[in-house]
Order: sequence, then structure tokens, then C-alpha cells
Amino acid sequence: MLSKSAGYTNDTIVAIATPAGSGAISVVRLSGTDSKNICMKYFTPVNKNLANGNLQSHRLYFGSFFDNEKIIDEVLVSYFKAPSSYTSEDVIEISCHGSEFIQQKIVELLIDAGARAANPGEFTLRAFLNGRIDLSQAEAVADLIASQSASSHSMAMNQMRGGISEKINFLRSKLIDFASLIELELDFSEEDVEFADRKQFFQLIRELKEELTILIDSFTMGNVMKKGIPVAIIGKPNVGKSTLLNALLNEEKAIVSPIPGTTRDAIEDTYIIGGYRFRFIDTAGLRDSDDIVEKIGIERTYDKIRQASIILYVCDIGNLSNNNVENILDEFKSYIQDESKHFIFVGNKIDQLSKLPSHIKEILDLDTVFVSAKRKENIYLLTDALIDTVRKFNITSDIIVSNSRHYQALTNAKDALDNVEEGFNNDIPTDLIAIDIRQALHELGTITGEITTDDLLGNIFGKFCIGK
Amino acid sequence: MLSKSAGYTNDTIVAIATPAGSGAISVVRLSGTDSKNICMKYFTPVNKNLANGNLQSHRLYFGSFFDNEKIIDEVLVSYFKAPSSYTSEDVIEISCHGSEFIQQKIVELLIDAGARAANPGEFTLRAFLNGRIDLSQAEAVADLIASQSASSHSMAMNQMRGGISEKINFLRSKLIDFASLIELELDFSEEDVEFADRKQFFQLIRELKEELTILIDSFTMGNVMKKGIPVAIIGKPNVGKSTLLNALLNEEKAIVSPIPGTTRDAIEDTYIIGGYRFRFIDTAGLRDSDDIVEKIGIERTYDKIRQASIILYVCDIGNLSNNNVENILDEFKSYIQDESKHFIFVGNKIDQLSKLPSHIKEILDLDTVFVSAKRKENIYLLTDALIDTVRKFNITSDIIVSNSRHYQALTNAKDALDNVEEGFNNDIPTDLIAIDIRQALHELGTITGEITTDDLLGNIFGKFCIGK
Repeated sequence: MLSKSAGYTNDTIVAIATPAGSGAISVVRLSGTDSKNICMKYFTPVNKNLANGNLQSHRLYFGSFFDNEKIIDEVLVSYFKAPSSYTSEDVIEISCHGSEFIQQKIVELLIDAGARAANPGEFTLRAFLNGRIDLSQAEAVADLIASQSASSHSMAMNQMRGGISEKINFLRSKLIDFASLIELELDFSEEDVEFADRKQFFQLIRELKEELTILIDSFTMGNVMKKGIPVAIIGKPNVGKSTLLNALLNEEKAIVSPIPGTTRDAIEDTYIIGGYRFRFIDTAGLRDSDDIVEKIGIERTYDKIRQASIILYVCDIGNLSNNNVENILDEFKSYIQDESKHFIFVGNKIDQLSKLPSHIKEILDLDTVFVSAKRKENIYLLTDALIDTVRKFNITSDIIVSNSRHYQALTNAKDALDNVEEGFNNDIPTDLIAIDIRQALHELGTITGEITTDDLLGNIFGKFCIGK
Repeated sequence: MLSKSAGYTNDTIVAIATPAGSGAISVVRLSGTDSKNICMKYFTPVNKNLANGNLQSHRLYFGSFFDNEKIIDEVLVSYFKAPSSYTSEDVIEISCHGSEFIQQKIVELLIDAGARAANPGEFTLRAFLNGRIDLSQAEAVADLIASQSASSHSMAMNQMRGGISEKINFLRSKLIDFASLIELELDFSEEDVEFADRKQFFQLIRELKEELTILIDSFTMGNVMKKGIPVAIIGKPNVGKSTLLNALLNEEKAIVSPIPGTTRDAIEDTYIIGGYRFRFIDTAGLRDSDDIVEKIGIERTYDKIRQASIILYVCDIGNLSNNNVENILDEFKSYIQDESKHFIFVGNKIDQLSKLPSHIKEILDLDTVFVSAKRKENIYLLTDALIDTVRKFNITSDIIVSNSRHYQALTNAKDALDNVEEGFNNDIPTDLIAIDIRQALHELGTITGEITTDDLLGNIFGKFCIGK
């Protein structure tokens, strides 16, 4: 099913594979039939017996890289014979000193000798086109490289090792069995035979839709974990929201002043706690204001509340009398419009109290922590509460979808199955139902790359870094 | 002579060896006796027969890097058995996906298993302490990594391959022969014997001093090539100096305005032309000014002229009458106080002329180019002139000293030899002369690291990047 024409050429490509800049060492990578020949035009191994290019796979050779008589660097060359390589083609890796001049010079010379500068992601594209990995695994490589927290790393690693592909292939094979029976019916449509038991069909479709729904629902979490779990810090003016943001980020990110309404723009930054990447959003204090800029800020706060997965409601309990706890509760509840959000009540300014108002915890049926943002006291209680909250997130799937392309395809596949179900219910002719089944199969196929187009591949691999 | 105590421990060190940041691949490097054992605690090769750590030198092993049950990455491990490695110790290189999370995680785990985070330059320090390279070669590694132009790369490569060491060892061995004869005389000083022919001595010392002088003189050039050849752009206000800087750098670096005195701070940037790194310095226009900031700027311009190797004297020839060419010449000559500087006369604003005033070239006994900085016309003539000028630099030595520590040691050695010569001339007792000879030997010995101290090593390797 795979179109080899999809941007595939078998020329030899070259790129710097290590991060940009200078360092102790850098690696230049070649892939393609001519990799070895091109490299050996410049490389003289210390062991002269190898100078004829008689390199063995998975070995390292020390020697010099020459531009004619002029030595460019002392390098280590490794050779990976096809198909035992990243791309399944002949691959050469040249490990040189990490000088920007040397890296550029080596790439230049290899291009002079016939290699072509690789496009972004072209090494991984070749691994896909040569059938070593499927499309969702290829996409996971880019996610893996970008991963900065344990949770995003873990999702990408699972996907790279075929977690999603396995699931999709399983669903797809079920659907294919089903489809083949339907197609069989079509072949004998003149005879009005029903090869497929309708009851079983309904059962299967319902099962498939259920599994798809679980995957689709996991995307909210997957996407949030990849980009950072949005945590909005909200509350009345001057309760210490910006001070709390700074305490959580461990830096003076937001401007803090005793003047109510200091923060107007929503200030965001991410911070990794307990392996999760949180995206904290400081917001304008919620109050009626005549200041135009502040008003816009307050409107944005409501936007941020809508986008957040977790909301920290900050309250000044420094000057709290027992009887206004109820008021707080009422005020607080007015912000809870969405049950999918997780709330944490943060009682701030405990430095101004002689005794913690622990009875509040009982009154509020909520996660409650007491901190002093100013003195950075008990911040760990809040970070613990954040981690607990994430762990409580409703994850019913062992596989988490974090790629929006997969999410879209899964949603389309489910829509197609809805149509199939509806079709059966309304006694729509089988040939029309078959179209929807094929559509569902097609959508699932695009995830693993069983079905693909040049545009799709260009779009996916164009976002990779060069050298991967 | 080498003190093994010099910061040397034989524990196993670890660091990320590739440039910081994320990319397709990164390399984590271990060096020390335990490298293999530490790595094998986490690494499971695809070929299960190797799981007992039976790795062979200079081979690459594909497999998974595990934190207990959790897979961190799919990696390639290379093993370099002592002494055939960069440090002469057992070295392991782990090539992983270039995610910052993965890099950090792998280093953390290796540290948990007993490795220690390497200090800057510690791998190269070990290569030196284990006698694989000498000190000037070790220093060249850092220069090589920092090299960004063909000329600085070429100097560093020459030094790394032992160019300077060879020369110094040659001079030192000559001096040692001489010293041993002097020491012999001291042993028999009661008998008033002269083992060493004084005439030959004078000849030798003069020869040595001559060679040292050539090396010392090469430093001006070497230092300049390493840091960028300083090119001061000077001239009257509003002749287009800043516009010329921008044209040379190909960016809008300096603020340009039709108001004379726009530039006050000296604005610098480097640009590589024809393999040489030039450091262009835009200066305040030279004029009498009452503006205090501008006055300071003009004073700095004179400083910059003193520091420059090449001076571009920019003149507005857009409104030039024949008879004021002489004036320009006079004015120009007033700035030439140092014959070691190279001058290029830049006639700017040719866009305002109908015909090039080529007769100026004949009148001025100088490199002369006519350009329009504003329209970026003929800038290539100026860059050609710059390259020609560098090629004319008086380089009498095939070895160029570019390290200020070497420069200092060479200068000290020459001073000591001056004292020796003077001592002989004044019939100073041989035992006093011997002190100066030992001093000269000592100074030369510090260059290659025959003689060294912990402080010196700390100073040199502390400037390296981590992972080298």
C-alpha cells in the first residue's frame, strides 16, 4: 500500500545530527548507497589496511579527515551496513571535534563528493519508507526529541515502541474482517444473502466505537501532558497570586506590588514538578474595575479558567474571620462552572496568622493547602497536591494519544462508524454502508501510515529537525 | 617530571559530550575503570549474548537503556578499551536521542551507579596526565573546538598535532645539552676547568634567542587570527563609516543617520571573509566636539586605532574637488603613527560621482578602493583588499604561537637567555649563570607540560567545555 514515490530518492544524504553549536564532539551522518564511498574520499584510517574502504559494520575507525593535503580533523567513523541501520540504508557517522567550522567543512566536503544536504526529518522518513518503522512511530521520534518531562518522554517512548500502532492495527484488523464480509455480500447482492450476522455487527461496531472513544478521550490528557498541564491561578485582587506564581516557578517572573490590579496580562511559564510539565498562568485579580486595561485582563482571566485543567483558587486567609468562610465558599463555587476542572483551594498569607484555620478544610469539600507565598512556606504541600491531582486525572486508556493528527483520524473513524450504525438502523443499502466502513479503515490506516500521501509526509517530516 | 597528583583521580567520570540543547542525537561519555560496568547496569544490548558486559573495543552495540523496568531510550553504545581511547582509559560513549530529558536522565542514572560528573576539560586533562598528549596539544583541543574560521582552525590543528611541541622540544634539547656542560663545570668548579667552549655557547644562545624571537613575534599574528583581526573604521563624521560597517557585516548593526556624530560607542562585530575572522570596529567620527559623550567616543576611537591591525580610513569622495586630495592625504597621514599598521583608503559615496577619481590612487601611495557603502557597491573590492593585506602580514615563522600562556613563557625564556648572555659578558660566576639557564629550561618546559603545577592545570582545563 505504501507509495515508494512519496518523496523517496535513494541518493545519499548528509546532515549534522547533534545539536547546533560547539561542544566536545559532534556527529555528521550520511545515509544512502554511496555513504561509504563518499566518506572514504576524505577519511584515512590509522589502520592503513582499511584505506580501500573495507569497513565492517558496527565498528569504529579512528583516523584523519582530509581536504586534499590539509587535515580537517581527527575523527571516529562508524559504519552501519544496510539494513542494520537507522534508515535501513548504508549509514556512516563521523564523530568529529565539535567546532562549528569543522562541522560545516565536513558537510561541505561530503556534498562536494556527491552527497545531498538532508531535508528535515529525512533520515526518519527513509526509515519509514523502507518499512523499518510505521508512521506513528516516526512521529514519536520527533516527540521523543522534544520531550522535556518524564510524562511527555514516557508517552513518546511508548508510541515509538509501537504502543499506538499495535492498538490501531488490532482495531483495524477487526474492522477488516467485518468489511470483507460486507464486501462479500455486495458481490452476491443479486442473491440477497446476508453473510454477516447483523447482531454481531452491531456488537462489533459498538465495541470498536467504545475503544475509539477511550483513545479520543485520552487526547485531552495527552495533549495537555505534551504541552504542559494548564494551571490557572485565580482569585480576588491582592491575595498574592503573582507572589505564588513566582514561588512555584522559583523566579521573579511576575511583577509583584501591594497595589491591587498590578497584574493585567496573563503571565505564563512552565515548570516541571514530579515529572509533569505544568503551565502556570497568573491572572488579573477578579473584581469590578473601571481601568480599561485591567478590565481586558479580567476578561482574559475567564478565558484562562476555561482553558485550564487545574485551577488554583487563591484566598487571603491572613485576615479571615470564622464567619466569612461561608462567603468564600459561595464566591469560590461561583467560578466552578465546569466539573471537568480540578480545583485546589490555596489559603495564602499564613505568615499573618498565629494558628492555621484547619476547620476550613472540613467546611470546603476540596483539596485545601495553606501556604505563605511570600516566605515560600509550605509550597511543597501545593506541589504535592498538584501531582496528586494529575494522578487522579481520569485516564481509562493504557495508551494515551498525544498527536493531534491521530486525534483527528480517530474522531473521523468514529464518525464513520456512527454513520455505519445509523445506516444499518435505517436499512440503508449495503453498498452505501460499505463506503463508510472503507472510510473508517482509511482513517485508521493514516495513523500508522498504511495509507499516506506525499502532502501528509511532507507535513509530518517537515516539522522534524535536520539530521534526524 | 609529571606530577600524577595534579588533580588526577582514577574514578569514572561522565558528561554530555555533544553541544547543549536538543537535536537528532546526543552523546554521553564515560571514562575510567568502571565505565563498562556502570553502563552495563542500564544497557541491554539487542544481542543478548552481550548482556554480561562482554563488549569488544571499537564496536557499536544497539540496545535499550533501562531505569529498572522503564525504558529510557534506544541507544548505541561504543566501547574503547584502554589505552586505545581519547583519555587512554576505558571509555564508553552512549549515543541517544537528543532530547534534553533523556540526556539528563542518562547522566543522572550513571551518577547513581557510581560515576562522577566530569569537570570542564577533565577528559582532555586525563589524556594529558596519562601521557597521550602534551599540554600544548591539550590546549589546542579547546582552541580547535572554538575555531570558527579556516585560519584559526589551521593554527589549532597544527598545534594539536604537535607543531609547537616539536619546536619547543627541539629548542629545549639544545639548551639541555648546553646546561649539562655548564652543570659539569660546576661539579668540577674547584679545578677551574671550562668544559664548554664559550664561543660556541654565545653562538648557541644567539641562535636560540633568534628562534624564540621569531616565535614571540608570531604571537601578534596568532593572537589576532584567533580573536579576529582588528580592523578599525575611522574617518571624519558623516563620511559613512557606520554604513560601511553594516555593508561589511551584511546586517544593520550600527545606527545610521545623516546627523554627524551619530556613532559614539565603538561598535564591534566579527565576520569571516576568505577564511579569516575580521573584527570590525566602527568608531566615532574624528572631529572637535563639545558633546561630552561624543568626546569620550572620539578618545576611544584613538584607542581603537592603537589596537587595530588594519585601519580603514573612510573618506567622502562624493563632493571631492581635485585640489583637496592633497588635504586628505595630509589629514590621513596625521593618523599614521605606527608603521606596523596596515592602512586601506576607502573612497565612499561613489554613487554621488559620475566618474571615479582614479587619479587619487596614484597620488596616495596606499591601497585604495572606491565603494558605495549605501548601495553596497564594490564592497567585494574592499574585502579582496582586506584578504590581500592579511596575506602580506609579515609571517616569518612556519609555527604561529596563538596562546598567551605560551607567549609569556617564551618571553620569559628569552629574558632568561638575555641574562645568561649578559652574565657571560660580565664574567658572572658560572653557578649564577646556571640559575638563569635552568629558568629558561623551566619556562620552555611549562609549554609542553614537562613542568606543571596543579594551579596551572586548573587554570587551563577550567576554561574547557564540559564533556571534553
